[in-house]
Amino acid sequence: LDNFSWFNAFKEMGLRVREAAQEIIGDNRAGEPLGEGASGDITFAVDKRAENAIITVLEEARRAGESFTFISEELGEKDYGNRDVVIIADPIDGSNNAKFGMPYYSTSIALAVGRNLSDVVLGYVMNLATGDEFWAMKGQGAYKNGIRIKPREEHPTRMVNFECSDPSCHLPGAMALLTIFDKVRWLGSTALDLAYLASGSTDAVYVATASRSFDYAAGWLLVEESGGVITDTTGKPLDGTPLGIVRTRPILAAATPELHKEALAAVGVD
Amino acid sequence: LDNFSWFNAFKEMGLRVREAAQEIIGDNRAGEPLGEGASGDITFAVDKRAENAIITVLEEARRAGESFTFISEELGEKDYGNRDVVIIADPIDGSNNAKFGMPYYSTSIALAVGRNLSDVVLGYVMNLATGDEFWAMKGQGAYKNGIRIKPREEHPTRMVNFECSDPSCHLPGAMALLTIFDKVRWLGSTALDLAYLASGSTDAVYVATASRSFDYAAGWLLVEESGGVITDTTGKPLDGTPLGIVRTRPILAAATPELHKEALAAVGVD
Repeated sequence: LDNFSWFNAFKEMGLRVREAAQEIIGDNRAGEPLGEGASGDITFAVDKRAENAIITVLEEARRAGESFTFISEELGEKDYGNRDVVIIADPIDGSNNAKFGMPYYSTSIALAVGRNLSDVVLGYVMNLATGDEFWAMKGQGAYKNGIRIKPREEHPTRMVNFECSDPSCHLPGAMALLTIFDKVRWLGSTALDLAYLASGSTDAVYVATASRSFDYAAGWLLVEESGGVITDTTGKPLDGTPLGIVRTRPILAAATPELHKEALAAVGVD
Repeated sequence: LDNFSWFNAFKEMGLRVREAAQEIIGDNRAGEPLGEGASGDITFAVDKRAENAIITVLEEARRAGESFTFISEELGEKDYGNRDVVIIADPIDGSNNAKFGMPYYSTSIALAVGRNLSDVVLGYVMNLATGDEFWAMKGQGAYKNGIRIKPREEHPTRMVNFECSDPSCHLPGAMALLTIFDKVRWLGSTALDLAYLASGSTDAVYVATASRSFDYAAGWLLVEESGGVITDTTGKPLDGTPLGIVRTRPILAAATPELHKEALAAVGVD
């Protein structure tokens, strides 16, 4: 498949994930634990249903003659005949929100023509609670619901999205950064935070917990293609990050290079 | 109108607010500042459009012979012939999210047969990003999307929603409370937080900033009618709070009396 055909496949995956998830979100079934997934987190029923919806579309592509590798939070890695074309997904990013019915969770899917983050050429994120879609194609910009996202001309400090996996972690160390901004949000889906950063709704994203590349592969391209900057929290590029299910690094992303520099300075990096 | 007729009027307001808001959210018009509202906050275009949508329905009721008073964030108080039947609304709760396009903002509308919070007999909250509706009628329970919410049998500590108006305020003082819970969210709409508490998606809500009664009049009844407890952060009941646009008190709400007691103890109240 060419990139445009994969884009259409990703949109189909997004719709099927949303349908599959909505059937069980809001009742007790979404949060049913099914054991530990490949990434080490507990897989819940909603995660598995979402992953299965993606696999259904991938297997259609495989039957049509495509070859690729699928990397995903729950199953780990599955070889469909080509190790160097990678589909990497977090079927549900924001699983806790999805389990409980808090309306901020997404599906995140990326295509890479190689095994590192810098090989990602297509990123797709759907807000499963609202249906909003975000995508980016390498060298061709970022989009929200079909409308091209314009790079920012200003360096606003209206809002920052903070994430960390538990309340006691890293908050004191983050205060100097958070207080640059007028408003803080802590919403629970890194992929969606990066999509809203790319599309201009928030101005920076600080993920204190080390993330996995499937959490940010699509968001990374969305931020890059919208004129933003995304690195780890010491300012190092993420480009060489291997695509896989291991935890890599905490993340700092900002709407513009100037704002990213200011945010790095706040966390003590010159 | 009887309470059931007001309920139908509130649903109509919710639909019209959603339509009016969605037309301008996501472009630059939603955040256009229109000057200071009656409550002292800046009124943005999205707030005013939402209030106007509510007023349209209220004026239909007035023409049909109803008399009441309307209290709202932007216009303050308007007398439609009866001071002791109060409709109190926050047309957009979560204005900053709405302005920027972060998908967590609501409209909150309550009916009171008197001038205090304890006189509220009907509360309605709509999540304007998803369309989810929450309502409660005094003595008749709380509902989400038409389904009766069951009181909790357990006292889970899965998630707490924290709110405060700026990042430097109150966070250190809140840490002892936040760390009782597995997950923290900071989402930006108190009315919606209380609705998701009532409906079982989150387990407690801590609003460190003093709130106005229009922010929590509907949410107060939703929490009470779902078996939860809602007080100020010292444990004092909010029942006697006058309905109006002045800031009153910070809020602590929890899914069950037992959990509320535990949360109060964490903030140093015996």
